[in-house]
Amino acid sequence: SLIALLPGDGIGPEVIAQARRVLEALSLDLSFEEAPVGGAAYLEKGHPLPPETLALAKRADAVLFGAVGDPRFDAVERAFRPEQAILGLRRELGLFANLRPAKLFPGLEDASALKPEVAGAIDMVIVRELNGDVYFGEKGRRTTMDGLRQGYDLMSYNEREVERIARVGFETARVRKKRLCSVDKANVLETSQLWRDVVKSVATEYPDVHLTHMYVDNAAMQLVRNPGQFDVIVTGNLFGDILSDQASMCAGSIGMLPSAALDTGKKGLYEPIHGSAPDIAGQGKANPCATILSAAMMLRYSLDDEVSAERIERAVAGALTAGVRTPDLGGTATTAEMADAVLARLA
Amino acid sequence: SLIALLPGDGIGPEVIAQARRVLEALSLDLSFEEAPVGGAAYLEKGHPLPPETLALAKRADAVLFGAVGDPRFDAVERAFRPEQAILGLRRELGLFANLRPAKLFPGLEDASALKPEVAGAIDMVIVRELNGDVYFGEKGRRTTMDGLRQGYDLMSYNEREVERIARVGFETARVRKKRLCSVDKANVLETSQLWRDVVKSVATEYPDVHLTHMYVDNAAMQLVRNPGQFDVIVTGNLFGDILSDQASMCAGSIGMLPSAALDTGKKGLYEPIHGSAPDIAGQGKANPCATILSAAMMLRYSLDDEVSAERIERAVAGALTAGVRTPDLGGTATTAEMADAVLARLA
Ligand SMILES: CC(C)[C@H](C(=O)O)[C@@H](O)C(=O)O
Ligand SMILES: CC(C)[C@H](C(=O)O)[C@@H](O)C(=O)O
Repeated sequence: SLIALLPGDGIGPEVIAQARRVLEALSLDLSFEEAPVGGAAYLEKGHPLPPETLALAKRADAVLFGAVGDPRFDAVERAFRPEQAILGLRRELGLFANLRPAKLFPGLEDASALKPEVAGAIDMVIVRELNGDVYFGEKGRRTTMDGLRQGYDLMSYNEREVERIARVGFETARVRKKRLCSVDKANVLETSQLWRDVVKSVATEYPDVHLTHMYVDNAAMQLVRNPGQFDVIVTGNLFGDILSDQASMCAGSIGMLPSAALDTGKKGLYEPIHGSAPDIAGQGKANPCATILSAAMMLRYSLDDEVSAERIERAVAGALTAGVRTPDLGGTATTAEMADAVLARLA
Repeated sequence: SLIALLPGDGIGPEVIAQARRVLEALSLDLSFEEAPVGGAAYLEKGHPLPPETLALAKRADAVLFGAVGDPRFDAVERAFRPEQAILGLRRELGLFANLRPAKLFPGLEDASALKPEVAGAIDMVIVRELNGDVYFGEKGRRTTMDGLRQGYDLMSYNEREVERIARVGFETARVRKKRLCSVDKANVLETSQLWRDVVKSVATEYPDVHLTHMYVDNAAMQLVRNPGQFDVIVTGNLFGDILSDQASMCAGSIGMLPSAALDTGKKGLYEPIHGSAPDIAGQGKANPCATILSAAMMLRYSLDDEVSAERIERAVAGALTAGVRTPDLGGTATTAEMADAVLARLA
């Protein structure tokens, strides 16, 4: 299978390099092609998502993505900023379903700001819609009747968009603890009211899954108060952006958590949920585990290789149990040393 | 001065009754008038915000508000749901600035899900815009060209709206630790880009305040990782709704935290940030402290009575130090007993 490697900005190249080492060590029938993306691509080719990069991503069986974003481009016109690369890939490849597991790795209780008994109970998946919402609605600047500058963004969902992400939520819950919590702001937003109505109607097809609804402000509280109550959360693009980052931090270091963005078939883009972290880029301090675990998700979802996925996951858990830790986990291991420890436990 | 008491739904009446006892015990020159609001008003008068209630709120010097919301009205048309009462009051009274202090009360370290050293460092104010954003934009249902039902809500801010809330943020920071963090999602939203531009230009008037900008997903993480880093956060209506609830939970029980919603003058609406909690309504289990502390905020901001405000705040702290605790704080005191303990320490 062909894997597109898109390292991107900041610590992206460092963590992608380590994930590649892990994949190569498995001796699977994989070939790799690399292409620039984000700020790096803008500098090199004049666009954060150059046509060749997009073509490679389309051609590949799966995409392993590092990170994009760099404050040096804050003043650049929106269409050319690094973030547009990931938004463009999600849109162009139809990657509508973002799976973000959040789970505390045994031994990392200290890394969470939550009390160990609260953090230790976290084991959830956030299913975030990734192709709609206020992210992709009409947006711009205009002048009001009073002559004032105004910025606007249209939030919307239609029933088909909600239906397909709701199904991913129910299917995900079905093979876990069978509890699905749909998060919205239906007391204020019409978009959320439609969301809630559609989720309820899809629920009739999944009588074995227990469905609840929660307002997003309450969900943000409950994720702190008692995150162990959640099994699967399904929510829209904007609320999912906020809640999944919050949940991952509750589960300890953001350096540990992978994600998958899937289309309706087997194609997927896999990326660590941490960003480009320009402040530590190039220093060998980045934790490669989130990217290595993203590679495991890639094997599971796009390449149907559950065995290799679990091999990687066990190796990461083993390295942590042995006490190997990058600085984000309170240790002193370098990016490469952390990956070495994983590689040593792959056998 | 005339105080409008709007108890509302669920535990609202119980906590308002106790706050009234505390205010009366101060022997100030206050008169009280009560009116129904929310689901209670809908049942009694056919509307969640009856004209008489709105008129009283307009006439009064300040409004002390309990809570609205009741799942029994979930199927009622949006315009008649309990939540419309609070949205209507904010809009009709021009209450654009929501101040939500979050601070851990000494002795309540155990009530937070965060490690004591993390929670103990929390001392911030969230300044949330309350009259604009996707809350009040055009919204509705329509049918797409493919014949699909769609829900939509327009998010927007104009420069004047951002300017006035930014000023509240800077003024609030100026009398605290002089650090203001503006939270937006400028990497995706045009509304946020305008927000950021305007906040930056207002900043030139406040050279003594250190301004930073943070994306909302990162803010949700940082509020868990290290909430002690924040002094004042200023943000829009939707992000403020989510982050302020999250922050208050980080600071322990949501039963402890007050809020103020202010207009451009001295008029304000004061309410506990917890909701109507229908599950414990009428059982004497509700913590009245958030409402009592809201009454203190009312004395401070609307009635210019800092001395009485601090008297109340010291009495609440004293009652907690003495170990009096409602169930949300792990104790067994009833709503009235908790208020008794505060009253006993008012002298
Ligand atoms: C970089 C940014 C556009 C992106 C988003 O908001 O979706 C990121 O925060 C994420 O969650 O993947
Ligand atoms: C009840 C609801 C409309 C309200 C809001 O979203 O503003 C509440 O959550 C709040 O924060 O005061």
